[in-house]
Amino acid sequence: MSRSNLAKLYVYVRRATERLVEPLAVEDMVIQTMPEMSPTKWHLGHTTWFFETFVLARAGLPVRDRRYGALFNSYYNAAGAMHPRGERGQLSRPTVEEIRAWRRQVDDALTRWIASAPDAAFAELATTIEIGINHEEQHQELVVTDVKHVRAANPLAPPYRRRAGDPPAIAKPLAWHRVDGGIVEIGHRGSGFAYDNEGPRHRRWIDPFELASRLVTCGEWLEFMHDRGYERSELWLADGWDSCRAARWRAPLYWRGGDGGWSSLTLAGERPIDPHEPVCHVSFYEADAFARWAGARLPYEHEWEAVAAACPVDGNFVETGAMHPRAASAGDVAQLFGDTWEWTRSAYEPYPSYRPYQDALAEYNGKFMSGQFVLRGGSCATPRRHIRATYRNFFPPAARWQFTGVRLAR
Amino acid sequence: MSRSNLAKLYVYVRRATERLVEPLAVEDMVIQTMPEMSPTKWHLGHTTWFFETFVLARAGLPVRDRRYGALFNSYYNAAGAMHPRGERGQLSRPTVEEIRAWRRQVDDALTRWIASAPDAAFAELATTIEIGINHEEQHQELVVTDVKHVRAANPLAPPYRRRAGDPPAIAKPLAWHRVDGGIVEIGHRGSGFAYDNEGPRHRRWIDPFELASRLVTCGEWLEFMHDRGYERSELWLADGWDSCRAARWRAPLYWRGGDGGWSSLTLAGERPIDPHEPVCHVSFYEADAFARWAGARLPYEHEWEAVAAACPVDGNFVETGAMHPRAASAGDVAQLFGDTWEWTRSAYEPYPSYRPYQDALAEYNGKFMSGQFVLRGGSCATPRRHIRATYRNFFPPAARWQFTGVRLAR
Amino acid sequence: MSRSNLAKLYVYVRRATERLVEPLAVEDMVIQTMPEMSPTKWHLGHTTWFFETFVLARAGLPVRDRRYGALFNSYYNAAGAMHPRGERGQLSRPTVEEIRAWRRQVDDALTRWIASAPDAAFAELATTIEIGINHEEQHQELVVTDVKHVRAANPLAPPYRRRAGDPPAIAKPLAWHRVDGGIVEIGHRGSGFAYDNEGPRHRRWIDPFELASRLVTCGEWLEFMHDRGYERSELWLADGWDSCRAARWRAPLYWRGGDGGWSSLTLAGERPIDPHEPVCHVSFYEADAFARWAGARLPYEHEWEAVAAACPVDGNFVETGAMHPRAASAGDVAQLFGDTWEWTRSAYEPYPSYRPYQDALAEYNGKFMSGQFVLRGGSCATPRRHIRATYRNFFPPAARWQFTGVRLAR
Amino acid sequence: MSRSNLAKLYVYVRRATERLVEPLAVEDMVIQTMPEMSPTKWHLGHTTWFFETFVLARAGLPVRDRRYGALFNSYYNAAGAMHPRGERGQLSRPTVEEIRAWRRQVDDALTRWIASAPDAAFAELATTIEIGINHEEQHQELVVTDVKHVRAANPLAPPYRRRAGDPPAIAKPLAWHRVDGGIVEIGHRGSGFAYDNEGPRHRRWIDPFELASRLVTCGEWLEFMHDRGYERSELWLADGWDSCRAARWRAPLYWRGGDGGWSSLTLAGERPIDPHEPVCHVSFYEADAFARWAGARLPYEHEWEAVAAACPVDGNFVETGAMHPRAASAGDVAQLFGDTWEWTRSAYEPYPSYRPYQDALAEYNGKFMSGQFVLRGGSCATPRRHIRATYRNFFPPAARWQFTGVRLAR
Repeated sequence: MSRSNLAKLYVYVRRATERLVEPLAVEDMVIQTMPEMSPTKWHLGHTTWFFETFVLARAGLPVRDRRYGALFNSYYNAAGAMHPRGERGQLSRPTVEEIRAWRRQVDDALTRWIASAPDAAFAELATTIEIGINHEEQHQELVVTDVKHVRAANPLAPPYRRRAGDPPAIAKPLAWHRVDGGIVEIGHRGSGFAYDNEGPRHRRWIDPFELASRLVTCGEWLEFMHDRGYERSELWLADGWDSCRAARWRAPLYWRGGDGGWSSLTLAGERPIDPHEPVCHVSFYEADAFARWAGARLPYEHEWEAVAAACPVDGNFVETGAMHPRAASAGDVAQLFGDTWEWTRSAYEPYPSYRPYQDALAEYNGKFMSGQFVLRGGSCATPRRHIRATYRNFFPPAARWQFTGVRLAR
Repeated sequence: MSRSNLAKLYVYVRRATERLVEPLAVEDMVIQTMPEMSPTKWHLGHTTWFFETFVLARAGLPVRDRRYGALFNSYYNAAGAMHPRGERGQLSRPTVEEIRAWRRQVDDALTRWIASAPDAAFAELATTIEIGINHEEQHQELVVTDVKHVRAANPLAPPYRRRAGDPPAIAKPLAWHRVDGGIVEIGHRGSGFAYDNEGPRHRRWIDPFELASRLVTCGEWLEFMHDRGYERSELWLADGWDSCRAARWRAPLYWRGGDGGWSSLTLAGERPIDPHEPVCHVSFYEADAFARWAGARLPYEHEWEAVAAACPVDGNFVETGAMHPRAASAGDVAQLFGDTWEWTRSAYEPYPSYRPYQDALAEYNGKFMSGQFVLRGGSCATPRRHIRATYRNFFPPAARWQFTGVRLAR
Repeated sequence: MSRSNLAKLYVYVRRATERLVEPLAVEDMVIQTMPEMSPTKWHLGHTTWFFETFVLARAGLPVRDRRYGALFNSYYNAAGAMHPRGERGQLSRPTVEEIRAWRRQVDDALTRWIASAPDAAFAELATTIEIGINHEEQHQELVVTDVKHVRAANPLAPPYRRRAGDPPAIAKPLAWHRVDGGIVEIGHRGSGFAYDNEGPRHRRWIDPFELASRLVTCGEWLEFMHDRGYERSELWLADGWDSCRAARWRAPLYWRGGDGGWSSLTLAGERPIDPHEPVCHVSFYEADAFARWAGARLPYEHEWEAVAAACPVDGNFVETGAMHPRAASAGDVAQLFGDTWEWTRSAYEPYPSYRPYQDALAEYNGKFMSGQFVLRGGSCATPRRHIRATYRNFFPPAARWQFTGVRLAR
Repeated sequence: MSRSNLAKLYVYVRRATERLVEPLAVEDMVIQTMPEMSPTKWHLGHTTWFFETFVLARAGLPVRDRRYGALFNSYYNAAGAMHPRGERGQLSRPTVEEIRAWRRQVDDALTRWIASAPDAAFAELATTIEIGINHEEQHQELVVTDVKHVRAANPLAPPYRRRAGDPPAIAKPLAWHRVDGGIVEIGHRGSGFAYDNEGPRHRRWIDPFELASRLVTCGEWLEFMHDRGYERSELWLADGWDSCRAARWRAPLYWRGGDGGWSSLTLAGERPIDPHEPVCHVSFYEADAFARWAGARLPYEHEWEAVAAACPVDGNFVETGAMHPRAASAGDVAQLFGDTWEWTRSAYEPYPSYRPYQDALAEYNGKFMSGQFVLRGGSCATPRRHIRATYRNFFPPAARWQFTGVRLAR
C-alpha cells in the first residue's frame, strides 16, 4: 500500500473509533462489568498504545508516558509487564480526556512519520501499521459488544443510540445447500491483508455435506426452549452442561422475560423478540446443543470456507447502524457475512505449517490456539472492511457477549 | 433541636460532603477498587437515598426514581432489595451529574419539609433526620478513605489535594498514665446525640491499668519491622497470622519501599516515613501483634472510655485539612481524639440491656455485633462534630484502609 | 499429683480413647468430610504426637519417626512444619495399625518415664503430661463429633453404636432463675487442673438478670422454624444471615425432612425429633437468632459462670453412653453441665492480665482469641472428668458439628 | 464373540483388576488426593456398577443395593443422580470388603447370565458387555495412575511394588521418519472391538511431514529445563503459560530435586532420572512448549494414525510389570505403542458423521468432545489387549497424572 493510502486508511479507521464512542458519558467508559470485557477508555488507550509501542517506539520516537506501557498492554509478554486483565475497571487515571489527547498526539506523530520516514524504515514497519489498523477495527467491534454489556448491567442505562427500528422482515424458510465432497483449498493467498492464522493455504478433504441457507432464527430458538432444550442434559456436551447449570442459562444472553413473552436488550433499547431475526448472543455450547436437538450439527470451519469463498462479502455490518442482526430475506445461502458470527465445530488450531508473526506480534494469534472455537463471517458489529472468507475469529466455548449465532450443517 | 437549627445543621453537613469531592474527576468517583470500599458517587447517592427513604418517603413525599432504591440501599433488608456490595463499581448510571441533581432535589424537599411539616410528623422524624446527618458524616470519612484507596491503586493518580506539609514535629516520649481500678460507668447518657450502640449506660468493674500517653509512632513500628515482627508467628493471633501470610503483609498499608527506606502514600502525595508521626492503616491483627512484641496489650474499650470521658474532644480532625495523623506534641494523655482510630481489645458486643433502633434503622448498628472489633476516638478523616468519648466504631480485624492506629495499655 | 496417680490417670484416659474407636472400620477412620474435622486415625496419631513431642522428646527420648512430626502437628508453629489441616484426609499412611503400634510404644515409654524420671525432670514435665491428658479428652469429644460427621456424609453408614433408646422423658416447663447484680469473681483458682484461659480469677460487675432453667428444646425450635425463623433477616446478625443463606440452613445440622415431619441423625441411627430433647448442632448465629425471636438473649459467659459456680458438675456426659442430649427432668437450673455446650454472647477474649503457657504450649489457647465465641458446660460427648464451671470452650460462630445448644437469658 | 469366549474374557479382565489392587492396604484405597482421581475402592465399585446397571438391570435382574446407584455413577445423567466427583474420598462406606463381595456377586450373576440368557437378550446386550470389559481395562489404567498419585501425596508411602530395575538401556538417536502427503483413510473399520469415537472411517488429506523415530527422552527434557523452558513465555500457549505459573511447574510431575540432580517418584520407589528413558507425566501444554523449543511441533492425530496403522501393536504395556516407560532400543519408528501416551496437536473432535452409542452409553465418549486433546498409543499402564492404532484417548491440556509423553513431528 502506498504511503498516502496507508495514511488515509489510518485516519479513516481511527476516526471511526472516535465516532463510535461519541454517544457515551464518561461514566460509561470507565467501568468493567466482567473480567472478559474492557472499559471503553481502555480500548481507546490500548489501540493507541499498540501504534506507539510497535511503530513509533520502534521508529525511535518518544512515548508519551512510560507508565502507560503496563496499563495498556493487553497480553504481550514480550512488550513488558502488564496490568491484570480483570482489573482494568480499577483505573481512575488517565482520564478519558487525557487518553483522547494521547490519541491525537499519536495520530499526529504517526501520520507525519508515514509521510516522512526513510524508505527502509517505512518498508519495515508498514505491515505493522496495517496490522494495527486491523487491530483497531477488532477493538471497534469490542467497544460495541462491551458497551452493550455495560448497559445490560444497569437498569437505568439509556439506549446507546436511539433509532427507528428496521421495517419488519420475514425470514425465508430454511433450505439446505448441498456441497459435493473432494479436495478443497483452504486459507488465505494473495495480495490483500490477512492475519497470520489464515495461512498457509493448504488442501483439505471434504466429505459431502449440506449447509443451512440462513442463520437459526429466534423463532426456532424459542421452539428449542419450549422443548426444554436448556433442561435436557442429553443434548449437551459435558462441559456445556456444567456451564449451563453453573450460570443458570435458560435463554440467550440479554433475553428477559419468560412464559409471558420474551424481550431482548438491544443497543437501541429493550424490545420484544422478533422470531424472524437470527438468534444472537449464544455460546458454542448452546449452539452445539441446539444443533443436536435439531438433528443437525455445526459446520466445520473448512466446510464453511469452502462455501463462503464463492460468495460476495456483503451483509449487515456495523456501517448499517443497526447494530443488531436482521432477518434473512434473500439469497441461496444468505447471511454468511455480517449479522452474527457463526460458531463452527472446529477447535481453533494452527493450519499445517503455520508460522506466527515475528517478534512481539508473534503473540497476536498463535498463542491462543487451545481451548477456543473458530467463528466465521463477522457480525453486525464488524466493520465491513475487516472481514473476508478466510477470516478466523475465536472465542472460548462459553462466551456469549459477542454477536454470536448459529448456522446448521448436516 | 429546633427546626431551624436542624435545618442549618443539615445544610452544613450536606455541603461539607460536596466540598470534599470537589477535587475529584468523574473517573475518580465511579470505580471500586475492592469490595469493602465504595465509589464516591455511590456515597453521594446512598446518603441521599437515606434521607429520601427514611424521611421523605415516610412523610409521604415522592421519590425521584424507584429504581434508585435497590442501587443505593447499603444493607437494610427491611428497605427492600439491594445491589450487591462488591458490584457498586459496575454501575455506569446514574451519572455523577444526575446524582448531584438528585441531591439538590432532596435537599430542597427536606429543608422545606423541616420548615413546614406538622408538629407531630416533625416530632416523629426529627431523630431520624439527626441520625441521617450523623450518617452523612460517617460517609464523609469513608469518602476520604475510599478515595485514598482509589489513588493507591493507580500509579498515575495525582494527589487528592496538594498542600504544604505541616512543620516537622517531635513526638513526646511515651509515658504511662496510671488508672486505679474500681467501678466505672460506661456508655452514653444525656441530651446530646448518640447512636443506639453507645447505650445504655451501665457499670463495669475495672482492674488497675496503665494507658500509653500517646499513639504508637512510625518509628516504633519500624523497630517492630526490623525485629522481624511480620515474620514471627509467636507474636500473632492465629487468624492474624493467616491474614498476614495470605495477604503478604510486611508493613502498614500504603507503605512502599524496603531496606533502602520507606515512604508512604498520603492524600497529598507520596512522602518519606516520619518516625514521629503515629502509625496508621494497620489492622487489629497487626496492632495486637505489635502490642505483644512491645510487652504490652491493647486497651479494652471500657478502659479507654474511662480515661477519655474526662478529656476534651480536641485533636487533628478532618477540618484541619491535613488528612494525615500528626506527631503528638502535647498533653498528659494525647491524641485520644483525632489522628487515628484506636483499636481496642474488645470485640464489638452489645452493652447489657442494649436496645436497637426501631423499624428499618434497627439494622443500623445491632446486626453487626459479631466478628468485629471496637475502635475509639476518631481520626484525621473524622468530622470533629461527629465524635465523642462514648463513640464506638467497629471494623473487621483484618481491615486496614481506615485511618487506624494503636495505643498501648498494660 | 503423685507419680502413680498420674500414671494411672494417663493409662485410664488413653484406654478410653481406644474404647471409643472400637466400633469403627478402617474406612471410617481415614477420610475427612470437611476441613474443620479430622480423620479418627489422625486424632489417634495427634494425641500420641503430643506426648511424644512435648514430653518424651523434651525428656531426651527418641521419637518413632521424624516424618510423623509434620503429619500430626495440628497448629504449633513452634513445633515445626505441619501438614495442611484441610488435607488430613489425603494421607494413606501411616495405617491405622501402624498408629496403634505407635500409641502402644509411646504409652510404654511414658509410663516407664513417669515411674523412673529424676525428680527435677518429673517436676518440670508433670504439668505438661496433665495438659496432655486433658488434651486427649478434648480429642475424645472430637472423635465422637467427627465420626458423627463422617456417618452423616454417607447414606450407607450404619449407626456408630446400636443401643436401646432412653425411656421417653418430659421436659420441665421453662422457668427463669433470677440473679441479683453485683460484683462477682470469675475464673479458676485453686489446686485442681485448669487451662491457662480460665485465669486469672478476677472481678466482674453483673447487672441483675434471669437465666433459663433448662436448655431450649427441639419442640421450641420447631416453633421457631414454623414461625419462619430461618427466613426472617431481622432476627439475624448480618454475618449470621449471610451464613444462613450461603449454607441454606433451614434446620439444625443432621435434621432431615420437612413439613411431613423431621427426624435427626444420631450416633444410634436416624430417629424422629423428640420435642422434649434439647436442640443440638446449632450455630451461634442460629442460637442468637432464636433468642431474639424468643424475646430473650444469650447469656454472657460471666453470667453463666456466676450461676454454675454454685452447682454440682453432674449431667449427661459421654460416660452415659447416650451420646445424645436428654430431656431436662429435674432441677431448679438444670442441664448446666452435659447434654449440649451452651453458646454464650461473649466473644472469646483473654481475661484481664491473662498469661498463656510458656514455650510451645503458649499456642494452646491464647492465639485463638479472636473471631470465636465462648461455650460453657460440656456436652453428652464430653468426659465428665474434663469439665468444670470455669471451663471455656470456643468455636467460630458458624460451627454446627459440635453438640452445641442454647440456654436463654434476659 | 461366542458366549464362552465372552465369559472367559470377562473373567480374565475382572481378575486382572483384582490382582492390580492386591499390594494395597485398605487405607490406600479409600482416599482421594485430587478431584480428578478416584479412590481405588471407587474404581472397584464403579466398574461393577457398570455391569450391574447396563447389563444385569436391563436383563431384569435385581441390583444389590439401590443406594449404590448414585455413589458409583460416574457421569451418566441418563442413569440417574450421582455423587459429586470431587467428593469420592468422603465415602466411608461401603467398605472395601463389601465392594469385593459385591464384585463376586455381580461376577457370578453375569457369567451365569451369559451362559443362560435367551438368544435375543444375549444378542442385545453382548456388545454392552464387551464395552464393559473395555471399560474395566480403562479403569485398570486409572487404578495404576491414581495409586501413583496417592503414593506421591505422602512421604511415608512405601513403593506400590518393589522390583529389581530393568537393565540400563541406551536410547537410540532421534531420527525422522518421512511420510509422503496424500489422501489417507482414518478410523476404525472391521470386526474387532472399537469405541464409537474411532469411527466412522473417513478420508483425510495429509501434507508431507516427518515423525520422530522415538519419544522425547528425559535427557532432552533436562536440556529444555536448563535452557529455561519453564520460564520463557514465548514458548508457551497463553493458557499453558497461565497453568505453568499458577501451578508453578518447573519439571514433569513426580520429579523431585533441582540443580543438584533430579529424581522421580515411580511405583517402585524414588530413583534418579535416567536420561535415556522417555519423559513422562507432562501436560499437553508442556509438550507443546517443548516442541516449539525444539523447532518442531506435535503430530496431528491423523498423521500419527497414518504411520501407526502399519505397525504391530507391541511395546511396554502393563503386563511387563515395569509400570514405567523404558528407553527406546529398537525400531525405525519405535514406541508408538506402550511406554507413554503421546499428546497430539489435535483437539478432541467428532469424526465426520460420528454417531454416538445409543441410550445411556451415548454419554460414554461423545459428550466430552470439547476442551480436550487427543492422545494416542497407550502407555506402560495400559493393558496390551486394550490398545490399537485407531484408539483415541483424550485428556484436558493441563492433566499430568497419566503416563503422558511426547513425540515430535515437523
